[in-house]
This record gives sequence, structure tokens and C-alpha cells, in this order.
Amino acid sequence: MGKPAHGGNLVWASALAGCPPSAILDFSASISPLGPPESVLTAIQSQLSNLRHYPDPSYSDLSLSLSHFHNLPSEWILPGNGSAELLSLVGRELSEFETTTLITPAFGDYYRALAAYNAQVLEFPLIGRDSINGVSTNDDSALLLNNPHNPTGVMFSREDILPCLDKFALVVIDEAFMDFLPPDEQQSLISVMQDYPNLVILRSLTKFYSIPGLRLGYAIAHPDRLERYRTWRDPWSVNTLASAAGVAALSDTEFQASTWKWLPKARKELFEGLSQIPGLQPLPSAANFLLVQSEHSCVEVQHRLLKNHQIFIRDCQSFPQLGDRFFRVAVRTELDNKRLLTALQSVLL
Amino acid sequence: MGKPAHGGNLVWASALAGCPPSAILDFSASISPLGPPESVLTAIQSQLSNLRHYPDPSYSDLSLSLSHFHNLPSEWILPGNGSAELLSLVGRELSEFETTTLITPAFGDYYRALAAYNAQVLEFPLIGRDSINGVSTNDDSALLLNNPHNPTGVMFSREDILPCLDKFALVVIDEAFMDFLPPDEQQSLISVMQDYPNLVILRSLTKFYSIPGLRLGYAIAHPDRLERYRTWRDPWSVNTLASAAGVAALSDTEFQASTWKWLPKARKELFEGLSQIPGLQPLPSAANFLLVQSEHSCVEVQHRLLKNHQIFIRDCQSFPQLGDRFFRVAVRTELDNKRLLTALQSVLL
Repeated sequence: MGKPAHGGNLVWASALAGCPPSAILDFSASISPLGPPESVLTAIQSQLSNLRHYPDPSYSDLSLSLSHFHNLPSEWILPGNGSAELLSLVGRELSEFETTTLITPAFGDYYRALAAYNAQVLEFPLIGRDSINGVSTNDDSALLLNNPHNPTGVMFSREDILPCLDKFALVVIDEAFMDFLPPDEQQSLISVMQDYPNLVILRSLTKFYSIPGLRLGYAIAHPDRLERYRTWRDPWSVNTLASAAGVAALSDTEFQASTWKWLPKARKELFEGLSQIPGLQPLPSAANFLLVQSEHSCVEVQHRLLKNHQIFIRDCQSFPQLGDRFFRVAVRTELDNKRLLTALQSVLL
Repeated sequence: MGKPAHGGNLVWASALAGCPPSAILDFSASISPLGPPESVLTAIQSQLSNLRHYPDPSYSDLSLSLSHFHNLPSEWILPGNGSAELLSLVGRELSEFETTTLITPAFGDYYRALAAYNAQVLEFPLIGRDSINGVSTNDDSALLLNNPHNPTGVMFSREDILPCLDKFALVVIDEAFMDFLPPDEQQSLISVMQDYPNLVILRSLTKFYSIPGLRLGYAIAHPDRLERYRTWRDPWSVNTLASAAGVAALSDTEFQASTWKWLPKARKELFEGLSQIPGLQPLPSAANFLLVQSEHSCVEVQHRLLKNHQIFIRDCQSFPQLGDRFFRVAVRTELDNKRLLTALQSVLL
């Protein structure tokens, strides 16, 4: 089996660790350790008897929830089978522009979605900067970035991004990890959406609510653009259980508050723990993961952690700008994070 | 809300019937009334705790099950988020040919998938024939048909289709309803798949096993073609619950046998009951639905059935070749079918 180019491939990891996938402690996928919320599991259970029906192609319930949650008319929101499905639709539109600028290191599936339609990629290296000021452009070019940025954890401010909306013909912002920030710290561009017909925002509901197996995301953009995307895919791409899970998740303010309470403390402790291990240097992060620079071979470290501790970290070999001297870890519970720190110390001895 | 161009839109129907969607007796979607099987629901339940992980992008378990089920190497099979997702990928390839022939009346989503990539459509009318002999072609053209044919219920024999594989550069056969026939009556082309690199077969697992809300289908084709399709979509398009449901469904030989036992008798009784109603004439069908020619306005009949009986039939307005003088009904249980016949008699009085 080939090496995975994305976190969360437990089949690959468990083969190396020699244990069942369920025994792996997974730091490789940037998924909240607090979920899924009970409310979401209950909603899924309640819909099992509805599996015998097609999903509502207008996804009225989910659209209404999203519309309320973001205070936007529902025509501006398109649910998808994970934000990954919506990224493929975006990739098709991006291929219509002369170039698409990616902030690198960039999420691997961006390259896949852009290559699928032969879009021309321009790379803008982020390492050594904390801003996208100075990103170059021409009249007919597009920009695809994620905010917070993955895998570095850098967050761009609204002020940093807004000029791009004047410079680029189309700006796509993948805000897959934005919901991990408390509302008053978020730098989402959803609030200015209706002022920018050339803006597309992608959101995920699977990371914050720990349901990547269910697939659920959404795009926010001008209704005309979403209408066009809709004709590029079938009418039932979001499954019934995911749709119900989304409605429950969006209204679970208790779960949301508990996440915003957990993350800053857990991330700080993990950051400090990693900093104290000789040869490791985590980068400051606004998200629920940390990119760590390492003096040791990370592939070596990854294999040792799997074989000796059934712990799975994300190596960065698939990011050419990072290679073998970086790895990425999700922030998990206090207990899990301590297990990781102890295991790292032991394999680096 | 616009009129649905596909069966199974219960949100639309329940608004007209003035009752909750769950109170509708749905004959409009061609879904088995026997499922979902217990085995499938159990498999779904057992995977709820795995929703916190990404699906295995190689879908090893499901691929292995499909490979055993069809006695084909797994590289020849690509699972999808419903066969509708795979149809969109097929639509993209079909646009590379000069023309694509559709056997009409044709499933509405075929037109959507072909239009999404500006494929050129040629129509070959089936009404009045029971064969596709004589379908014309040129060197660079493709054929997209379903077998059994929807909405007529006509089944083409293997011998009828095989010559098309020599005439057309690409032949796509949507066998979404083929599994409703007992194995010895099926006319699937899966058995000759490895002899024809220009053949693509689409299959659904949601109709026979009553899980359209979960989304699950697969394409069978040459591994090089499937590898190409794979780059056109994201790596996690099938959700974890659908994947587990598929594994359970394929090995549920008891449910399969009970379906093959139920259908011929139930279809025969429904056919005879419809034939005895003045002004109605059902067409012979090999599938789990019947197309019915009517001397009455079918839209009128549909609305009366909804308002007075909460029964939902599929009008054929979205098929230009059929219009208001045809409707389609699924074959359901003996009891449900009797309810339909009684209600039809009452609204046609």
C-alpha cells in the first residue's frame, strides 16, 4: 500500500503498527478529540428509519440551519459531501482562470482538484512570512488559500486578505479550521460575503464536530455561482445522516463552548511540552494542530511512534517545501497529549 | 418549490398532501419496500463510533466484498457516493466523444450529467420497440443506456447489447435495477467486462437494499479508466456508514433471496390490478416498477392521490416523450399495492 498523502489513513498506520486501526492514537488527522457530540449521534440515530428515502434535494432543513447560523440567505450556501467535494467543483471553476495562486506548503488535495481540470498553479511560499502581502497577480488570476493555514497554523487577518479581493478575479478561502477559534477571534470573511461576488468560502463541519467519516461541508458564494456548481454534480450528494448531523451540530452551543474552552489550554501545554524536547520546535498556531520542526528524520520518528506506541503523527513528506524535517500533530486531550510527549521523548532518546 | 424532476421528493409531495413526509406512501421512487435489511442497519450502528475517523480512501473492505460478489479483480471496481456521483464522472468522459446516444425516454439526471460537460446528445426513441437494434452510430460516438430501462421496465438481452460494443467507442450501461432480477435471469454485462475495454457499468446498492438516503453505488470498468475517474473527485467520497452497509448488504443472501421471491408475484398482481382499471394500461416490466399509460391526466391523478390518500406516484412530465399520459409506480408490498389500486379506482371514478 502506498504512503498516504493525507492524515487519518488508519489502515496504512495500523498495518505498520501491527494493531487494529481502532487501537491507534491518531494525531495525524486534525479532528477534535471531544466529539462527536451526543446531539449529533442522537440526530443520526433518529434518521436511520429515513434511509429508505432519497435525501431532500433542496436540503431545506440543513440550509435553514446554516442560513441562521451565518445570518445569510440560504441561496448563498451550498451543502456538500465534505468540503472536499466542493473543492472539486471550485477546481473546475479555477481552471477557467489563467493562473491560480496557492500559498505553500499547501494541502495536497488542492493540487489534485486543480490538476483534475488542468488549472495552472502559481506557488507563493509562506515559510518565513506571516502575511500574504506581496502576493503577485495579473488581471485574470485566482487565489486559493486556507485560513487558518494548514499545515502551518498561521492565521491571516481579515485586513491581510481583503486587498486580495480587489487584486484577484476570484478568491477561494478554505476556512475548514476557522470554527476552532472563539467567535470574537475568528477572521472569517463570511461577514463581508455579500459585498464580494468574486469570493468563495469553503467550510467543513467534520473537523470541529469529529465526523469526517460522515462527510459534510458547505460552500458560501454568490447564488449564481452556486447554481452553476449545482449543475456540475448530482442532486443528492449529501447523505441523509450527514444532513441531520449538521442541523444538530450547528445548534449545539454547549459543545461549541466546550471546544473553545479546551483548545487554547491544551494547545499551549502541547506547544510547551514539544518545545522542551531537544531537537523539536513547534510553530505558533491558531488552529487545532501544530507544525513541528525537527532535527531528527520525521519519517523515522513516525515509524518508531507507530511500532512502539501505536501513536500516529503526520509526516510532511507530501509537502515538498517541508520534507522530512517537519511533522504535524493534532491537539488532543490533555491525557493524549501527555502520552504523545512521553512517547516522543522515549523514541528520541 | 419547483416540481421535482425525479421520484422520491417527499418534501414536495408532503407539502401538497398536507401531511408530514413520513405519512406519505411513496410509489414514486423505485426503492424496495422490503429493506433496509437488519444486517445493513446493524452494520451502520456498529460504525457510528468510527465516524470520528476519515473513511479509508482505498475502501479496502468494500472493494474486497464487491470483488468477491462479482468475481472481478478489485481494480475493476470504483465505489461512489451513489451511482449518481459516478454518472457525473462518466458524463465528463462522454463529453470527449462527438455524440452520446441516449435511449429515450431517458432518466433526467443523464441529461444533467451530459449537459454539465457540454456533451452532444443523440436520442434514440424506444417507444414502439423492444430492442436497440438499429441504433445508429459513427466512429467517435458513445452510448449511454440503462438496463433494465427506466422508466419503461424493458430489459435488453446481452445479445441485443453486445453488437453495440463493436459499434460504439464507449458504452455505458446503467444497471441500477439489474439486481432485482434473480441471477439466472439477469442480462448484466459484468461477465464479459474484461473482454471490453470500452465498457463501463454503473451499479447502485441503494434501490435493492432500500438505502438511497445513505448514497452508495459503484462503477465497473477497466482499471486505467477508473484511475482517471479517481483523479476527478476527492479521495473520501463514500461515507463510512455507506461503505459498511455495502459490505453487509452484499453478503445478505437471505435478503437477496426474499427479494427475488417477492417481486415476480407482487409485480404480476399489481400489473393485473392496474390492467383492470378502465383507462389504465401498464407496460410489461422486468424491473421493480411499472410504467402505466393512462387516458386520464396523470398530473391530475397524482394530485388527487396525494390530497385524498397521501399516496405519491411518479408523473412523467419530465420525460418529453411521455408527458401527461403516463405515470410510473414502484412495486411495493401486497398490502401497499392494494391500497394504491383501491385509491386509483376511487380517484378515477
